Amino acid sequence: MDKMKGQQSIQLDRAVYIVGRASVTGKKEGEGPLGDKFDIVCEDPMFGQESWELAESTMQKKAAQTALEKAGLSPSQLRYIFAGDLLGQLIATSFGVETLDVPLFGLYGACSTCGESLALGAMAVCGGYADYVMALTSSHFASAEKQFRFPLEYGNQRPLCATWTVTGSGAFILSGKRGRVRISGITTGKIVDYGIKDSMNMGAAMAPAACNVIAQNLRDFHRQPEDYDKIITGDLGYVGQEILLELVSEQGYDIREKHMDCGIEIYDQKTQDTHAGGSGCGCSAVTLAAYILPLLEQGTWRRVLFVPTGALLSPTSFNEGQSVPGIAHGIVLEHVQ
Amino acid sequence: MDKMKGQQSIQLDRAVYIVGRASVTGKKEGEGPLGDKFDIVCEDPMFGQESWELAESTMQKKAAQTALEKAGLSPSQLRYIFAGDLLGQLIATSFGVETLDVPLFGLYGACSTCGESLALGAMAVCGGYADYVMALTSSHFASAEKQFRFPLEYGNQRPLCATWTVTGSGAFILSGKRGRVRISGITTGKIVDYGIKDSMNMGAAMAPAACNVIAQNLRDFHRQPEDYDKIITGDLGYVGQEILLELVSEQGYDIREKHMDCGIEIYDQKTQDTHAGGSGCGCSAVTLAAYILPLLEQGTWRRVLFVPTGALLSPTSFNEGQSVPGIAHGIVLEHVQ
Repeated sequence: MDKMKGQQSIQLDRAVYIVGRASVTGKKEGEGPLGDKFDIVCEDPMFGQESWELAESTMQKKAAQTALEKAGLSPSQLRYIFAGDLLGQLIATSFGVETLDVPLFGLYGACSTCGESLALGAMAVCGGYADYVMALTSSHFASAEKQFRFPLEYGNQRPLCATWTVTGSGAFILSGKRGRVRISGITTGKIVDYGIKDSMNMGAAMAPAACNVIAQNLRDFHRQPEDYDKIITGDLGYVGQEILLELVSEQGYDIREKHMDCGIEIYDQKTQDTHAGGSGCGCSAVTLAAYILPLLEQGTWRRVLFVPTGALLSPTSFNEGQSVPGIAHGIVLEHVQ
Repeated sequence: MDKMKGQQSIQLDRAVYIVGRASVTGKKEGEGPLGDKFDIVCEDPMFGQESWELAESTMQKKAAQTALEKAGLSPSQLRYIFAGDLLGQLIATSFGVETLDVPLFGLYGACSTCGESLALGAMAVCGGYADYVMALTSSHFASAEKQFRFPLEYGNQRPLCATWTVTGSGAFILSGKRGRVRISGITTGKIVDYGIKDSMNMGAAMAPAACNVIAQNLRDFHRQPEDYDKIITGDLGYVGQEILLELVSEQGYDIREKHMDCGIEIYDQKTQDTHAGGSGCGCSAVTLAAYILPLLEQGTWRRVLFVPTGALLSPTSFNEGQSVPGIAHGIVLEHVQ
């Protein structure tokens, strides 16, 4: 019973390593500050397909294949895929993974799904249910805008608090076989609803959920912010970051020096017209694969708290006047000597 | 490593019991053959709310609360909720569980989600990550028709192969604490796509996935159909059942005497105008809670293979001419002496 830590966390008693990783993005992400770190940058936003949804599926498939190739594994060696995306009924995932022919657990945690997939994948490996599993997530700017906001052709104005959905997919292979980064702990988030009703201000909707997971992680593991080299949220952006820092300080922790947000890192706000930053399942996933994990592998960072953040926005509930609740999932990543 | 059985299955080495269960349904389900077995039958299809989506959330919340009350537990004793529904971005779940204030893993496997939630919940308990978890799923006829097919006001004709989405929610509490039914094994499904493009014939879309899970379960555990008292699919209906029996026989197994389908059991085809049977996440969930588990508890049945089936239908992919892939998740349930 000592795997359970505090109220919302678990400590993995058997090491689970990230032994494979891949990132596939669109052109805009390739032009951003992390552009040269991605495995594949596709110039064609349609990824050679006839619809935005199939484009996203193709990107997800490419990420999965690339992670397998880099790790020297075949799909048949994967016991499970834990995967999800932002689209209704997870169609990017359904059509993305079907040819891999691997048992699938479909997940939905909005943009926090990367954290959810790593958490459940790590629990499966640590529990002895699998030798290798894949955690896979994606988002696509055009399929997301079409579903959640306005058709691109409409050319609507975007307020400064709006984020830009990342076109990207990240794939991770987890195993008990030794790698250079391990997942040592998990803090699973609750739904936190501050009553935000603005679909153009997702940072504000997600910040309270991120605060809950970060503060609870520190309490559950009896740590201080100094025990982490970085505390990294998924896609709060500039607006959400300020709210987070304020909320966390109310909980008695100052994480200003430690905090980083994937949505802020992935685009150049000044030149790329992305307003408050990047967002989407793909945002945290490709930043983890291309930027965070290499620094952990090299030992530049020793221990990181990775917190993908999700805004549970739905066009149906939004149009019916409901709020946008938030959720976040925390993953403790550690450098292995 | 001996938890892994064959290609797609695991055997739980530490017993996981179903220690709580509840079913909440709509009026039509209450008028069906299982009507007197449900915990709550709500006469008002709106469940006192202003939208179909909030009605479904309210039903899900009632199911969760009833399961907790019957088991004598409070929400704070739940370590995790594994939950999902059919609506885009799982809004029935988001607004259904938020007041419970419990860490959440959002799941999507279409109508197979009940199986997915039981599988992951059981893996969490068996792995020592939780004392109590809840598996929770729902569907609502009106919210599903609105999303997937036509507005009810349109009054469209339904072909005879169409199923009727069950208005119902089932909640299950899993624990290592001794109960009268245990989950002893899990067979996780792959996406199986036979190219079905008819959104009114979900039974045909799901039957191949159910066949894969049933045949693989028998192979992985070295069992014959006779080793189960029942092999129970979620919502294939009359059309899907015939296809399943044919496909399974091609795999060398005759399950005609053992097969039962929740979608066939839940309505009276002759008097309730439900055509091919019931469907939806709620169909298998409420049938499990109200009908299957009591018979396992009493020992009338000793071992059952429970296989919720899902059709990965999306209005977007469907309107773009894509097929409807299927998925299924198998759970081995055993009577405890």
